[in-house]
Amino acid sequence: MLDIALLGCGGMMPLSNRYLTALLCRLNGSLLLIDCGEATQVTMKTLGWGFKNLDTICITHFHADHISGLPGLLLMTANSGREDPITIIGPQGVAEIVRCLTVIASDLPFELEFIEIPRGRREFSVSAHGYGVSALHLNHGAVCYGYSLSVPRGGKFDLERAKALNLPVRFWNPLQKGSAVEFEGRTYTPDMVLGPARKGIKATYVTDTRPAPSIPDFARGSDIFICEGLYGDPALSEKAREHKHMTFTEAARLAVAGGVSELWLTHFSPAMQNPKEFIGNARAIFPNTYCGYDRKTATILFEDEDEAD
Amino acid sequence: MLDIALLGCGGMMPLSNRYLTALLCRLNGSLLLIDCGEATQVTMKTLGWGFKNLDTICITHFHADHISGLPGLLLMTANSGREDPITIIGPQGVAEIVRCLTVIASDLPFELEFIEIPRGRREFSVSAHGYGVSALHLNHGAVCYGYSLSVPRGGKFDLERAKALNLPVRFWNPLQKGSAVEFEGRTYTPDMVLGPARKGIKATYVTDTRPAPSIPDFARGSDIFICEGLYGDPALSEKAREHKHMTFTEAARLAVAGGVSELWLTHFSPAMQNPKEFIGNARAIFPNTYCGYDRKTATILFEDEDEAD
Repeated sequence: MLDIALLGCGGMMPLSNRYLTALLCRLNGSLLLIDCGEATQVTMKTLGWGFKNLDTICITHFHADHISGLPGLLLMTANSGREDPITIIGPQGVAEIVRCLTVIASDLPFELEFIEIPRGRREFSVSAHGYGVSALHLNHGAVCYGYSLSVPRGGKFDLERAKALNLPVRFWNPLQKGSAVEFEGRTYTPDMVLGPARKGIKATYVTDTRPAPSIPDFARGSDIFICEGLYGDPALSEKAREHKHMTFTEAARLAVAGGVSELWLTHFSPAMQNPKEFIGNARAIFPNTYCGYDRKTATILFEDEDEAD
Repeated sequence: MLDIALLGCGGMMPLSNRYLTALLCRLNGSLLLIDCGEATQVTMKTLGWGFKNLDTICITHFHADHISGLPGLLLMTANSGREDPITIIGPQGVAEIVRCLTVIASDLPFELEFIEIPRGRREFSVSAHGYGVSALHLNHGAVCYGYSLSVPRGGKFDLERAKALNLPVRFWNPLQKGSAVEFEGRTYTPDMVLGPARKGIKATYVTDTRPAPSIPDFARGSDIFICEGLYGDPALSEKAREHKHMTFTEAARLAVAGGVSELWLTHFSPAMQNPKEFIGNARAIFPNTYCGYDRKTATILFEDEDEAD
């Protein structure tokens, strides 16, 4: 299962009643954060998932509302006692930007390791702590990437086939988890006891951008598609175009085209006090749309998985 | 008169119910901010004094909880339509630190002008937009300065002496405001119509530091002395010493020694949920002590001045 929490749902500037858009994910205890605007550490502390297991941070782009909270977050993580490295993934130049920002957070007790998405790359994929992380180049005022997280799921363990191998039972677990084992001079591989790979989990996060045909392809089949909707009012379409953002309607169209299961809107304009007022504009196009709110959480299960599994 | 607002009262990290310590002052419409930790822009927006007239920012030191909100604040100020330069006063190196932090806030529509306090200087004074700004080197883990703001007040206008000069009445106002005037080949100076200079206004802001004998001298006669009290519980004196901070009791002793009129405690430890619980420890020493809280404001009048003046 994958837990996700939308830490905030605001765009452009933090408000006293709305934190900036950022997504925290938890997979087998490993935390992955996408974006870190000013005060992200505060809402993350309120959420209560802790800081010590923050293994990965993905940055969409270098506008302040998506990265300015990084020094404070790293210091908070240092306070949690973390000593293991943190991987930071972002556009080319992210290492230099973070080096600048952390001029006020030196002496961190952990290393920062950087994965820079090479300039000009339309798509980019990497594995990090069990997450498959893919990035898609978007269409914004700055170089900006959407992120898709995938959690693969191996085939089902076939008890009969395992028994037929006449292996000691202690080898079943590593085989089930995907590791080959050696026994009496012979190598046994997971495919000998597992059925075909099953559908995994996919969550996609897209902000800040104009709509583009590559986005539905990128988000295809997502269990949750978290997408910016700076404006709910379709009368502001021209403004959305001008500022390289989207309306609720445009986000809903992408959700339909991508065949996603659920859409959460986020990155609301500070001028839009009650985004729910406009939710009908999105639901008319994609009914399974929800307005994000600070610390809206979901647990995404594998098909036929029980939360108690 | 001088308006002051304690924008936050927290130390070390912003909390969901307590912003980081920063002080905003307003004099004849000109805003001066001391310190700018993460999310200072949020509480400043809630306060409602605006951003466009932010002429001066004083930074005490380069720990993140006192400066990390600067990029966001400057962007917010840019959004307000400001185009006039902003003066930033701080320890030597502040220009380079701000240059690093604003890597995510480039293209500001105003200039940043820096006044760096030369390393090794115990005291430093400068004038900025009607404020007299003095800095005192404190005793903290990093190079750190306290700030004292003074608003001088000229002598009272003497109607009889002005009349006796036989000057046209239109010259009275510039003379009263401190400017010399020329009339019929003769120069008239303000001292010809003004009585002796009167007591001005003084507000002093001291955080983060251990107590030191120089602090009462620096704060002497302040109308308001805003001083850190990281811990209310005197049992934490040793911890205060170790981290180069102060207890409520220590702050109160400085208030007594400095002969200030009123003490506001601030920069509370995140672990201290209810600072008021410990206020008695300070009041036993200096009765006119108050616990700071987010956006606690005061209007400091000149002696015998009426708010309607």
